[in-house]
Amino acid sequence: MTLTGEVFIGAARQRGGGDAFPAINPASNTALTPDFHDASAEQVDRACELARRAARPWRDATPVQRAELLERIGDNIMALGETLIQRAMQETALPQARLEGERARTVGQLRMFAAMLRSGEWLQPVIEPALPERKPLPRPDLRQRQIALGPVAVFGASNFPLAFSVAGGDSASALAAGCPLVVKAHPAHPGTSELVASAVQAAVKTLGLPEGVFSMLHGASHKVGEQLVSHPAIQAVGFTGSRAGGMALIKRVQSREIPIPIYAEMSSINPLIILPTALAQHSAQLAQNYADSLTLGVGQFCTNPGLILLPAGEAADLFASNLAQVLQSKSAGTMLTKGIASACRDATERLDSANDAERLASGAAASGANQAAAAVFKTDAASFISSRWLQQEIFGPVALLVSCRDVAEMQQIVDSLEGQLTITLQLEQQDNALASTLLPSIEEKAGRLLVNGYPTGVDVGHAMVHGGPWPATSDVRTTSVGASAILRFVRPICYQDFPDALLPQELRR
Amino acid sequence: MTLTGEVFIGAARQRGGGDAFPAINPASNTALTPDFHDASAEQVDRACELARRAARPWRDATPVQRAELLERIGDNIMALGETLIQRAMQETALPQARLEGERARTVGQLRMFAAMLRSGEWLQPVIEPALPERKPLPRPDLRQRQIALGPVAVFGASNFPLAFSVAGGDSASALAAGCPLVVKAHPAHPGTSELVASAVQAAVKTLGLPEGVFSMLHGASHKVGEQLVSHPAIQAVGFTGSRAGGMALIKRVQSREIPIPIYAEMSSINPLIILPTALAQHSAQLAQNYADSLTLGVGQFCTNPGLILLPAGEAADLFASNLAQVLQSKSAGTMLTKGIASACRDATERLDSANDAERLASGAAASGANQAAAAVFKTDAASFISSRWLQQEIFGPVALLVSCRDVAEMQQIVDSLEGQLTITLQLEQQDNALASTLLPSIEEKAGRLLVNGYPTGVDVGHAMVHGGPWPATSDVRTTSVGASAILRFVRPICYQDFPDALLPQELRR
Repeated sequence: MTLTGEVFIGAARQRGGGDAFPAINPASNTALTPDFHDASAEQVDRACELARRAARPWRDATPVQRAELLERIGDNIMALGETLIQRAMQETALPQARLEGERARTVGQLRMFAAMLRSGEWLQPVIEPALPERKPLPRPDLRQRQIALGPVAVFGASNFPLAFSVAGGDSASALAAGCPLVVKAHPAHPGTSELVASAVQAAVKTLGLPEGVFSMLHGASHKVGEQLVSHPAIQAVGFTGSRAGGMALIKRVQSREIPIPIYAEMSSINPLIILPTALAQHSAQLAQNYADSLTLGVGQFCTNPGLILLPAGEAADLFASNLAQVLQSKSAGTMLTKGIASACRDATERLDSANDAERLASGAAASGANQAAAAVFKTDAASFISSRWLQQEIFGPVALLVSCRDVAEMQQIVDSLEGQLTITLQLEQQDNALASTLLPSIEEKAGRLLVNGYPTGVDVGHAMVHGGPWPATSDVRTTSVGASAILRFVRPICYQDFPDALLPQELRR
Repeated sequence: MTLTGEVFIGAARQRGGGDAFPAINPASNTALTPDFHDASAEQVDRACELARRAARPWRDATPVQRAELLERIGDNIMALGETLIQRAMQETALPQARLEGERARTVGQLRMFAAMLRSGEWLQPVIEPALPERKPLPRPDLRQRQIALGPVAVFGASNFPLAFSVAGGDSASALAAGCPLVVKAHPAHPGTSELVASAVQAAVKTLGLPEGVFSMLHGASHKVGEQLVSHPAIQAVGFTGSRAGGMALIKRVQSREIPIPIYAEMSSINPLIILPTALAQHSAQLAQNYADSLTLGVGQFCTNPGLILLPAGEAADLFASNLAQVLQSKSAGTMLTKGIASACRDATERLDSANDAERLASGAAASGANQAAAAVFKTDAASFISSRWLQQEIFGPVALLVSCRDVAEMQQIVDSLEGQLTITLQLEQQDNALASTLLPSIEEKAGRLLVNGYPTGVDVGHAMVHGGPWPATSDVRTTSVGASAILRFVRPICYQDFPDALLPQELRR
């Protein structure tokens, strides 16, 4: 399968009308073939108009038809085989096993939404039959269902070239809800995006669906994304990425004449809180497991645990020395892009030269292009609480550790936190009382709370929440992973006294 | 019960520190006693801080405790008896029967949310037990529940002094969700608001709840509301009112450092579409019923039917003459405030002098202070589609009628509409084919669709949707009336591998 570098506008593939950009292999800083081209303004408009035209037939498609599309996309992605994995490896420097796992997750979540659609359980209609005898007023017949919002713009994320990209969680949930998609591919993996887009486009064609159900645009320039979220046809936006990127899109959406929902998953330092008994009993194991989680995927996860809180004392000192030891064995890894690698290096250097932080543990030094070495820095509670930049996410295998004098200080730190995707407690039963004290604050700060685990694995199921208070996400009421993600793309509608002939199928008597 | 004109800051009542303003009897333009005072900046801050402190205990209160508060508020409101109704009549010029009905609705919705809380059915937890043997990865134990967002600011609406005011639908759903309330009373009915606030404050005290669960501020100046929605303690906003007022609050909320959800119900002209057979068969009855709905409550409903679409022809002419006849018998009514009355008069005069509209039907002339006379104007489809101001809501008993040449023209008008709270179809079985043609467009434009009814009755139940696309509401995914309104004030949270001892009660094994 030869890559063409083209954009996907409905059933067509064509060269983008904008500037050219190459895909870069971050392990070597070399350009891959072919060149890709940003979509032109006309192409963005055309994709959105096709999506607008597809919106009605696609929202009115039966749940089974929608399930078939999701399943077919999954099959087509699997059929890409090694081609997809190899290209993704070249573009992201992620290892084969990780990408194969991510592909399984991607196909798995497509199938999960398909199963939800087939079961009919996911969006229960609410039916209140007429009560003509009710006093003081009769009740009309009232029937509520959920309908799709309309065309959705999805932004591929750099750090999940499959699971948060062209056919990732946002795309799967939007299609499942009945919304046509216009995807803006991430310029860090345009070839991977093209391959997946070809799988989606082929599925739409095979099933004879309106072509506007899916388009995919390239946009190395911000212009493409800005035009996309400003387009009147677009009714909602899904985004996973940096805080700066998310904020820029949110501002753009707020300036629309007609505002729309935007779901931006942006920033989280995912505190890990080690309570005293757990610390005393499992120092070595905790250090090992923490180092594994911190360095997994070169720390390039939204849920990477970037902050450790623990009670000061001998056990904390032992944990620190254990951590220093195990981190030494962690080799540096190639990051996804030159920009990500240099931002990580800058943040590390800034911590090294800061007065209020000192280096506590280091991974093996970086050597190749765009590599990041793991590092854990230590700061004190007062510095952490008073410093905005110490609280900021560092995207990569870099963390801060704060030893807390007492519970009150630990509580103060928790209360000073911004919103988080996750907060983790490491505890033994003897720590339960302390955990109970902290828990109300913790609940107010995050979307997912873990006990004795590590946040870097996100299970795709019905109970999962991958969301949380600002700036973890722009809409605290939502999750971008798991079954509930579909709720972002529907709205309730009520039919009053409708005859069966005019009611949608699922609301008929 | 003597009114004091004070604000309610938690358990305290005190004179507002801001400017004084009187309650006005709109029927006579005379001031009522006592004077009220805007809350000072310190008082707004104090109310919000108390709400912040109450947020944790109130969200952790049991469903039964929350139900008890709602029921007690309802009982206390009923115990106000005639005092409440008489004061509301003086402040709003609404008739006694309407206010008694509105009180029943208000107490009814408090009890509905209480029943939901007691049944436990409303927010089903999602539980996925651990699957340690799952391949390729074991599944952790995942449990999802909904938790309250935190303190909510609610703005009383002028047109529902009870049901959309201090203890109205926004307040009832926020309290039911577990959110403390800071209400900004509407300055058009401050005495009514004081009476209801005393009922709520007493209920909070009787049940020994944290005082910050409820505060109520006066604010004739916009400053109070702006400060309120900008306060860092406030986590969501409920508003029902004008488009200009809603837009100003939305802008203010968007400029917060940490954005929050705002639910603003703003503007709707609630099209009523009469299809050919229904028009031919029921011209007289339709004219009568329409005139009743248009003039109900002097047209001061969010769901007032301000636009009639019908097929041109003899039947349309007959309907117009029937409407002209029945409207004559509709007496003018006193509007809620001087501002509302003059805005309605201005809009009517503008239509009278417009080139693209002509007067079709008139109610009896206004005589007393702040009265509005009913009026229906006629325009053509092209003028309506091309004119922004003809499409704007006129708050009052004033409507536009558009005779459509054919189905295509009717379709064009529907497609040109802004988002609506409701759209109504008047039809006979022979009209079903035509209705089916229009239905997809109609579904995309409104939150509630009616057949052969009138939108001015909004049933408070589980299937109701009082919402819709912008500008009907600022968040299309929500309803401000009915059971689903509670979903605006909660967010999902996931507990992973939590021991029973640390899980919230409803998620334990």
